[in-house]
Amino acid sequence: MHQINPIIIMTKQELIATHSRIKPYIHRTPVLSSSALNEISGAEVFFKCENFQRMGAFKMRGATNAALQLPENQQAHGLVTHSSGNMAQAVSLAAKSLGIPAYIVMPDNAPQVKKDAVAGYGGQITECYPSIEERQKVADGIVEKTQAAFLHPSDNLDVILGQGTAAMELLEDQPDLDYVCVPVGGGGLLAGTALAAHHFGKSCKTIAGEPRAADDAYWSLKAGKIIKNLKADTIADGLRTHLGDINFPIIQKYVEEVIRVEEGEIIAAMRMIWERMKIIIEPSCAVPFAAILLEPQKFKDKKVGVILTGGNVDLAKLPF
Amino acid sequence: MHQINPIIIMTKQELIATHSRIKPYIHRTPVLSSSALNEISGAEVFFKCENFQRMGAFKMRGATNAALQLPENQQAHGLVTHSSGNMAQAVSLAAKSLGIPAYIVMPDNAPQVKKDAVAGYGGQITECYPSIEERQKVADGIVEKTQAAFLHPSDNLDVILGQGTAAMELLEDQPDLDYVCVPVGGGGLLAGTALAAHHFGKSCKTIAGEPRAADDAYWSLKAGKIIKNLKADTIADGLRTHLGDINFPIIQKYVEEVIRVEEGEIIAAMRMIWERMKIIIEPSCAVPFAAILLEPQKFKDKKVGVILTGGNVDLAKLPF
Repeated sequence: MHQINPIIIMTKQELIATHSRIKPYIHRTPVLSSSALNEISGAEVFFKCENFQRMGAFKMRGATNAALQLPENQQAHGLVTHSSGNMAQAVSLAAKSLGIPAYIVMPDNAPQVKKDAVAGYGGQITECYPSIEERQKVADGIVEKTQAAFLHPSDNLDVILGQGTAAMELLEDQPDLDYVCVPVGGGGLLAGTALAAHHFGKSCKTIAGEPRAADDAYWSLKAGKIIKNLKADTIADGLRTHLGDINFPIIQKYVEEVIRVEEGEIIAAMRMIWERMKIIIEPSCAVPFAAILLEPQKFKDKKVGVILTGGNVDLAKLPF
Repeated sequence: MHQINPIIIMTKQELIATHSRIKPYIHRTPVLSSSALNEISGAEVFFKCENFQRMGAFKMRGATNAALQLPENQQAHGLVTHSSGNMAQAVSLAAKSLGIPAYIVMPDNAPQVKKDAVAGYGGQITECYPSIEERQKVADGIVEKTQAAFLHPSDNLDVILGQGTAAMELLEDQPDLDYVCVPVGGGGLLAGTALAAHHFGKSCKTIAGEPRAADDAYWSLKAGKIIKNLKADTIADGLRTHLGDINFPIIQKYVEEVIRVEEGEIIAAMRMIWERMKIIIEPSCAVPFAAILLEPQKFKDKKVGVILTGGNVDLAKLPF
């Protein structure tokens, strides 16, 4: 894996190579728009539908790239991650595509539907006590025992480059975007998107949407150092984590602004996208659109790309 | 309007002319597929996403065509229909596109959300007692008073031709379909689809899916005459009506089979499409896919087109 300064290494050429590398393993997702939502927001919004991605989220891109970047003898030992969400499914499916094992550490309180999805992709689940420390400890144990490679869901250069390909495709379809807006959780998608917007946009600026209830990225950028959430009680369950040492300098350099939104605004934006666009998105996806609605003067008459990050929701537990 | 034998008049050229006529007023909806659903069904299924159509359903096609086919002096008086569902919205939006009035008779027990949608498109609502007879009587009264044209939602040649354009587009994208499957309610979509499959498919057969709880079309084809449902207690609320004198002979001539499905099968198929494809469809849409799942030997390894008819659901009242 890379050891040198991430900002120097992540060139345009590297993003292009990443996209060619993962292309056979991912879907080229469609870009949809809605005249109703354009009218409501005052902007011209282009939604990149990663909810239609394989396994239902953009994480497939980063996991696939990180797996493919492993040396072949290392790859054969398999992949390890800890996650209760999309990364667990992404690593399982990426490993399945490559015919290698996937070891997934899941907190024992993870929903059965998520465990079933991981098992369905062939991931070998180890359950553990639901704390970050315990998850990491169990994952470390598996790495030691199996020599499989640990993939961090967001603070890994190959993962960041992989996630950046979603914005690359979006800018290929809509080259004149003024803004691209994504949610920020662990920071992998935000860093990858910011790099892609910098290299492939025509002065396209990157904006992050973040729940006020877990606004560590907002405060980290203000402080100039990574700040962690004391609590993160947000419906946007993909955004409860904090930034990492590898993605933070990229975010500092290339992200224009973090816009924070309330829980009610997230739910309202989510419902609007469900009702008007007839597509299923996770609460985390709705955060950037909620941010656009919050600052109409900023986005008025602008061309705005939004990455809809995923569509894995429990239909029995909807917030409306 | 046409007075002569519908089977004679509906030529390939007439469908082509219909498509050109309505094209500026409708979306070209995407055709999606899902490897997960292909695996589950054993068929290769292509979903034509009319849930992404303007106002959220294929009815926009037929309503627009029927409105455009009116002589200009007649058009100016506006359009009348009675409906508690998608036709009410379709006629309202078609009228709005043409800058003419729309008079919509709605049963007074129709959900507020549907009344709001109609009003949002500029439709002028008259509420009435919720019986078919009363709805027709009130609509007739409006026709007399305003000289607006009454549009029947399914038993009208121009409506049938308009609905047929969805299958035309589907066959343009996937010319080698073995089957095209649609739900049957009033019969307008089924008749239009069967004509399109006949004229534009390479031996593409048309199959209807129908709820057992409202299986009038199944029995009508068996009896050789239109039979009405005594009751129609199905979740597929768009399919509770019966066939009409104009679409029935077309259906008799060109439809291969009606496959009937149980309520539980409809809900399971609907949930599968929501969860795997991440798109929002109405219960009625799920009926053809439920039919495919019911007869795996018939559809095994076949290329099957399915028209997903609409996506207007009340998110507060989901069956799961």
